[in-house]
Amino acid sequence: MNGVHKAIKSFFSGKVYSVHSLVLEEPDKQVVRRWRKEVDPLPPRMASVIARSAGKNYIMTVDVESGEITQHDATHISGFPLVTLEEMLSAIYAPFSNADFNRTILARGVDLADVACLPFSPGWFGKAEDGRRLVKLECFSRKDTANFYMRPIEGLIIVTDLDTLQVLEIVDRGKHIPIPKAEGTDYRLDVENGPIIKLPNPVSMEQPGGPNFVIEDEHLVKWANWEFHLKPDPRAGVVISRARVSDPKSGVMRDVMYQGFASELFVPYMDPEEAWYFKTYMDAGEYGFGLQALALEPLNDCPRNAEYMDAVFAASDGTPFVRSNMVCIFERYAGDAAWRHTEIPITEQLIREARPKISLVVRMVASLANYDYVVDWEFHADGLIHVKVSLTGIVIVKGTTYVNMNQVNQNEDLYGTLLSENIVGVVHDHFVNFYLDMDVDGSDNSFVNVHLQREYTDGKFPRKSFMKVNKTVAKTEKEAQIKMKLTDPSEYHVVNPNKMSRVGNPAGYKVVAAGTAASLLDPDDAPQRRSAFTNNQIWVTPYNKSERWSGGLFAYQSHGEDTLQVWSDRDRAIENKDIVLWYTLGFHHVPCQEDYPIMPAVSSGFDLKPVNFFSRNPVLRIAPYVENELPVCKAAASA
Amino acid sequence: MNGVHKAIKSFFSGKVYSVHSLVLEEPDKQVVRRWRKEVDPLPPRMASVIARSAGKNYIMTVDVESGEITQHDATHISGFPLVTLEEMLSAIYAPFSNADFNRTILARGVDLADVACLPFSPGWFGKAEDGRRLVKLECFSRKDTANFYMRPIEGLIIVTDLDTLQVLEIVDRGKHIPIPKAEGTDYRLDVENGPIIKLPNPVSMEQPGGPNFVIEDEHLVKWANWEFHLKPDPRAGVVISRARVSDPKSGVMRDVMYQGFASELFVPYMDPEEAWYFKTYMDAGEYGFGLQALALEPLNDCPRNAEYMDAVFAASDGTPFVRSNMVCIFERYAGDAAWRHTEIPITEQLIREARPKISLVVRMVASLANYDYVVDWEFHADGLIHVKVSLTGIVIVKGTTYVNMNQVNQNEDLYGTLLSENIVGVVHDHFVNFYLDMDVDGSDNSFVNVHLQREYTDGKFPRKSFMKVNKTVAKTEKEAQIKMKLTDPSEYHVVNPNKMSRVGNPAGYKVVAAGTAASLLDPDDAPQRRSAFTNNQIWVTPYNKSERWSGGLFAYQSHGEDTLQVWSDRDRAIENKDIVLWYTLGFHHVPCQEDYPIMPAVSSGFDLKPVNFFSRNPVLRIAPYVENELPVCKAAASA
Repeated sequence: MNGVHKAIKSFFSGKVYSVHSLVLEEPDKQVVRRWRKEVDPLPPRMASVIARSAGKNYIMTVDVESGEITQHDATHISGFPLVTLEEMLSAIYAPFSNADFNRTILARGVDLADVACLPFSPGWFGKAEDGRRLVKLECFSRKDTANFYMRPIEGLIIVTDLDTLQVLEIVDRGKHIPIPKAEGTDYRLDVENGPIIKLPNPVSMEQPGGPNFVIEDEHLVKWANWEFHLKPDPRAGVVISRARVSDPKSGVMRDVMYQGFASELFVPYMDPEEAWYFKTYMDAGEYGFGLQALALEPLNDCPRNAEYMDAVFAASDGTPFVRSNMVCIFERYAGDAAWRHTEIPITEQLIREARPKISLVVRMVASLANYDYVVDWEFHADGLIHVKVSLTGIVIVKGTTYVNMNQVNQNEDLYGTLLSENIVGVVHDHFVNFYLDMDVDGSDNSFVNVHLQREYTDGKFPRKSFMKVNKTVAKTEKEAQIKMKLTDPSEYHVVNPNKMSRVGNPAGYKVVAAGTAASLLDPDDAPQRRSAFTNNQIWVTPYNKSERWSGGLFAYQSHGEDTLQVWSDRDRAIENKDIVLWYTLGFHHVPCQEDYPIMPAVSSGFDLKPVNFFSRNPVLRIAPYVENELPVCKAAASA
Repeated sequence: MNGVHKAIKSFFSGKVYSVHSLVLEEPDKQVVRRWRKEVDPLPPRMASVIARSAGKNYIMTVDVESGEITQHDATHISGFPLVTLEEMLSAIYAPFSNADFNRTILARGVDLADVACLPFSPGWFGKAEDGRRLVKLECFSRKDTANFYMRPIEGLIIVTDLDTLQVLEIVDRGKHIPIPKAEGTDYRLDVENGPIIKLPNPVSMEQPGGPNFVIEDEHLVKWANWEFHLKPDPRAGVVISRARVSDPKSGVMRDVMYQGFASELFVPYMDPEEAWYFKTYMDAGEYGFGLQALALEPLNDCPRNAEYMDAVFAASDGTPFVRSNMVCIFERYAGDAAWRHTEIPITEQLIREARPKISLVVRMVASLANYDYVVDWEFHADGLIHVKVSLTGIVIVKGTTYVNMNQVNQNEDLYGTLLSENIVGVVHDHFVNFYLDMDVDGSDNSFVNVHLQREYTDGKFPRKSFMKVNKTVAKTEKEAQIKMKLTDPSEYHVVNPNKMSRVGNPAGYKVVAAGTAASLLDPDDAPQRRSAFTNNQIWVTPYNKSERWSGGLFAYQSHGEDTLQVWSDRDRAIENKDIVLWYTLGFHHVPCQEDYPIMPAVSSGFDLKPVNFFSRNPVLRIAPYVENELPVCKAAASA
């Protein structure tokens, strides 16, 4: 991609510029679907580039071979591209050149050498944020702890121009609030913080014979009946493409999903006051969910049998850099059965059959300042794809004068939980929206609402009522804007109406929600308009190459006119078309003491599950584990 | 318990009787809570016995030492005790002595030697089921397959008196429906049914140093920071008692749950027609969720590092028998992190800390004829208890004349999915209701609805809205009858209002639902009245020793007057009392081809999660895995 770097440099001919995104452009889907490996030449490789120069956004396509640049209109949408790592690194020093800032820090009795300021996106509320690219810095005391997040200098917000690094405004409201203590906040193993708990005999996931998967051409993962393309992406984290599963009957590889990735996040904090109201993060579009994914820790982030994949991303000058060990891939056996049955003794047949449940996990962790998001794509041998998001890391907290709840007036809202002396864990939500371009047995699919409803028998039978299945094919997008209800349930199927099974059911996959959450913000509130993808749990749109980022291409300070809600409200036809399903996974988080000083992981996810896709249980013939085929292990001498 | 057996025999003095339940009677809770091991003598051991003789139900308490019997009133509630294994074994032969039965089987061209009939509970619909103890038998062809469930002799129901084994009525509606083919239905490994799929390098859970748990006094499990009493139970499956967790700060064992178990199941099928309407099973009360739990299959039901526990149950003559390997216990590491954080590079600190997530799983599998329910109680080192139910085994199917959906009229309701030629998988639900006697830091607790609601800022701040937490303590039972709503969410806490943390929060545990389902039957429909525990996802009652079985003590043919709904509607005080929380886990099941001929496991569950119970993250100081402490493994020579 060195040619691309040169082409960009020459395009800006000596002017200062920054590259905010440089990735391979998605080739046309039809080209990819038609392309045959080892037969057809590679489609032309193009780079998709987002850059800024002299206060303007640029969207460009660069031909990787020729360096030819095509410029696209970037003025029709509000907002800015994600903030680069280099900009963040510069912004954190901006406050220290401001005399007022230094004065207020000293007035609080804090040594400037102990202060760390972090850049946070300002959101967009239609006033001060207009026209200027801003960052709001918040500062912490690093004294006596690595976990400075637990030592906020509360109420102090340094509004800074990201382009000029000029401090524009200092909000300074919390002078009376003490900085919480450092004691007990550090989470590092080698810091004195209580005795270490260790179980004498470790239980481990072992696969001494090596993995059963291969990675061809650096990105094509083949495991058991699955194959898919795996690519780190600076914005989405990882992108799974062309996931296909073999039919156990014919051995033919069948399309399941053309592409799947985390499209956007929304993390609104629920404190409306001056220093907190703007905290309504869109982490993929504002910071880069992949850019913020760092190296994984072998043995603890991923099990011993994991293999690792590096990412190559572009720095803000357009040159590549390597993010090593960003993704891990491992086979999992967690002690569960894929299926089992014991025949009852009354039939005089002693039958006891059980098969191990084995899966392949692809994992990355994005560390967005304090928070860590673990994202797993788990491929099961029975054709199911489980997507799991685990939240861990550090809860962002608010300083308070209180050290005990008995000091708090009953009517006072702390907007959170008193976690420790002078520390409130502020209530917030996490939403992760997934782009799921399902191609079930081919690209033209339909979305079916398999509604379960009470039906009355009207005295014809001893039963008064039963649950009836009523299937409705969504004709247009609005019919597929789904708000889930426990008492008015449906299954949600993506089917191929052109591919019928032997007994006449359309091949399908269903999206199965586990626990999730819906946004409680007012639909007209600016943050909610910008992250309107949280208005529904499920959406279906016709495939459109330009509709990838559900919170908008330029999420930073966006106004909300380039979102999934806006696209979907066009109400285009989606029946028997190439369609994309969007699923929003949500978490409400009311912090509790256990989240202090670092929170135990909380997980939820969803399944993409075959439904009448296979003619029978696809793991019916999977082999059971037998003793003499399992690894031969002994305890480590040092254990 | 031999003395008990003799006492019962002598009580019935020569009359024919059957023992339907014989378990140790729960000692008074206050006695148990006060009892100190190695100091106090054991409380008097009493047996709780349910028996039948001459068409009457008996409830008795038998003193294990003296054999003295106290008889309790058994006439005030409808229904019958669970059907014994011996009765089931007898009932299956009843049809064969009936000439009409033999005639209709032969008329269908089926060899009587190939026929297996299974006994199903008849439900209660207020007519034919009154006054008589009934069973409805349904028959299958066993020819050429072990999976006879896939070969129903459709529409044939043999209504039989369970007490006399007399055939009362033969419903014979399905003569025109062929018996589905045997081909492809067998699930056994050693039966020719397609090639076996085997990944060359097994991934295994290994713990060569042996477990980190001990089992004292045969039932007291101690692992990491947890201890609890584990007991197989013929009705509930397993009962967890006195679950306590140590405080990482003080080392003191703190109460979490006095007792937890699966109290009742409800599995209504959604076909209202003659041969199907009554299929509304209450598996714990009708069959015994523990009685139907058979031996587990090592390496495949449970991982290699599992240990096993036997059950001792009473046969219908009152004598004990051993159910070996009914429960397995193992430590799990599934490759996930308990918590992790990477510090962002902009702070110039390279910090990457992750800790393995380790848990202890207690598992049993109940095989209720066709279906297998895997129930896991999983204790996590961070204080969380995860209860998981996995559904697998065989979907019960209905014979049909159809071989392809193109033969089915658009308006015709099959009440299910055509799974294969002549086979419909009938739509149904599964509900499992859990009894959770929470004793959070002592027995007197309150139930708090931590409601999350939209709040408007009324122009005071740039944000229009935010999510506010509003806590309400439930004063009486009706305030704790909870129907969950995604768009009107709450957290549900059980707190000890008398035990405040250092910063003044009450010690608590919350119940966290994952995916669940609500019953769609009419509340006045007889099956729904009997299993009215499905009317809400959560209930809270004051502790009452007699209120253990949410579908009634005598669930079989019960009328629904002895249920959780009835108890809860008394609306007793529950604030700062010894309370019991009931959680109903639900699944809607619309079968699909992948469920044929045996279904891949589908799981869901719920968490009991500490909330302000610990003063900080209780696994903060858990050790990471390091290479030289993990097992030393090599691949098996035969792999």
